[in-house]
Amino acid sequence: MERPIGVIDSGVGGLTVLHELKRQLPKEKFIYLGDTLRCPYGSKQEEEVIQYTWEMVTHLMTFDIKMLVIACNTATALVLEQLKEHLPIPVVGVIEPGARAAIKQTQTNHVGIIGTENTIRSQAYELALKRIKPNLTTTGVACPKFVPLIESGKFIESDAIKVVEESLEFINEHPDLDTLILGCTHYPIIQSLIEKVVGNNVTVLSSAVETGFEVSTLLTFYNMYNSQDMVHSEPVILTTGSLNVFQHLKEEIFQLKSASLKQITLT
Amino acid sequence: MERPIGVIDSGVGGLTVLHELKRQLPKEKFIYLGDTLRCPYGSKQEEEVIQYTWEMVTHLMTFDIKMLVIACNTATALVLEQLKEHLPIPVVGVIEPGARAAIKQTQTNHVGIIGTENTIRSQAYELALKRIKPNLTTTGVACPKFVPLIESGKFIESDAIKVVEESLEFINEHPDLDTLILGCTHYPIIQSLIEKVVGNNVTVLSSAVETGFEVSTLLTFYNMYNSQDMVHSEPVILTTGSLNVFQHLKEEIFQLKSASLKQITLT
Repeated sequence: MERPIGVIDSGVGGLTVLHELKRQLPKEKFIYLGDTLRCPYGSKQEEEVIQYTWEMVTHLMTFDIKMLVIACNTATALVLEQLKEHLPIPVVGVIEPGARAAIKQTQTNHVGIIGTENTIRSQAYELALKRIKPNLTTTGVACPKFVPLIESGKFIESDAIKVVEESLEFINEHPDLDTLILGCTHYPIIQSLIEKVVGNNVTVLSSAVETGFEVSTLLTFYNMYNSQDMVHSEPVILTTGSLNVFQHLKEEIFQLKSASLKQITLT
Repeated sequence: MERPIGVIDSGVGGLTVLHELKRQLPKEKFIYLGDTLRCPYGSKQEEEVIQYTWEMVTHLMTFDIKMLVIACNTATALVLEQLKEHLPIPVVGVIEPGARAAIKQTQTNHVGIIGTENTIRSQAYELALKRIKPNLTTTGVACPKFVPLIESGKFIESDAIKVVEESLEFINEHPDLDTLILGCTHYPIIQSLIEKVVGNNVTVLSSAVETGFEVSTLLTFYNMYNSQDMVHSEPVILTTGSLNVFQHLKEEIFQLKSASLKQITLT
């Protein structure tokens, strides 16, 4: 089935998910829409997030997508169930794959979650984890400095490690915590820094990576694989905001040099 | 949905899958059937494997199972598609989850597979891997000494490491191979030995672990979770053969002390 898979995010963070989807499913076509103009969703009212998400989805549905990936934690927490109920295609969020991977990974049954303040406050990961495995211990901590650090591009400088160390100090208080979920699609961009700080005893899991795995599973079960035996062209990337940040990130961070980039308006 | 999940295998190897399912999905009920009397399937005619598998499935369907897991590589390779087509419930095999996990893991795009002679000869993993990601390099090697080593219980003795070292010598010839799939459900029992031999540069993936992840994903997408908020009783284990091996393995290896064990006859 040659129809594309749609990927939506409030901005650029979801590019980590797109990158993983492309890596794990090279035969598939992808179309990405980042609502950078109205980003971040984390501080918006619930009704606004629902409305904006539906506007993105409605736009992508015109491209005849066969599956929708919500590469945004806030939108997943608020709109996933509604979208699953109303869309005629399978819908995948980023929270459940991360939670499932943590359950698979942890041997001590103590899982940490880091994310934006809104995601941590929503306890979406805790709920997803405990719905499957009630006897887990979870520790969720907001890292509000990470997204600005990543968006500013300063994460390659030497003092970035200090920001990460300070934000992750809580890990030392939980010696039995053996698994840490990156509960924000921006964070995989600084995963190696985070891994350096938490050390070898804690496995760091990227929701982006695990979402790729889940989409792959569902393509099989819904018989939706692209059966053509060729590696596909680069994804189409749409944004409601400035092209500059996307241009930089897609080339420097994600090696998506030939991805086509286009500004659109949602109404 | 409180109905049990059925797990079938030609013998005891599938207990590694059952163990992972139980660990990753503690709220679910499981019923396992091992056809130990006619094990191993690997050396049987194709028609026999198909017939025996259907007999197991027919027996488990009387327990009103909500999902079927084929915890046997031979039966997955030969009967999965047929079962998916004809059964009114979702069916999961062990090959695709292992293949998907390897695609997720590998950075060098060179994946190794070890399994029984039949599994390696069938190239089932290679086909599953390349169907998703055509540009992978794969190296499949049979390790015929592993199953007898495991079934004899001698894998805890000091010369077991020699058997594993000899069988895995091929790894040294492929310095870019960074991911190794255990393509036999027995092998996770000696996973720590295998990891010791292949070293830190090769990630060892158990199909058993990944199958647990995939079943968890599908339970969500088919809305089949057991929503009761309690951890469930031990699984029911049925076998067509001697109870002795099961008795030993379930207690010593899998800590399933209170699992009920019963001999049955398939016709």
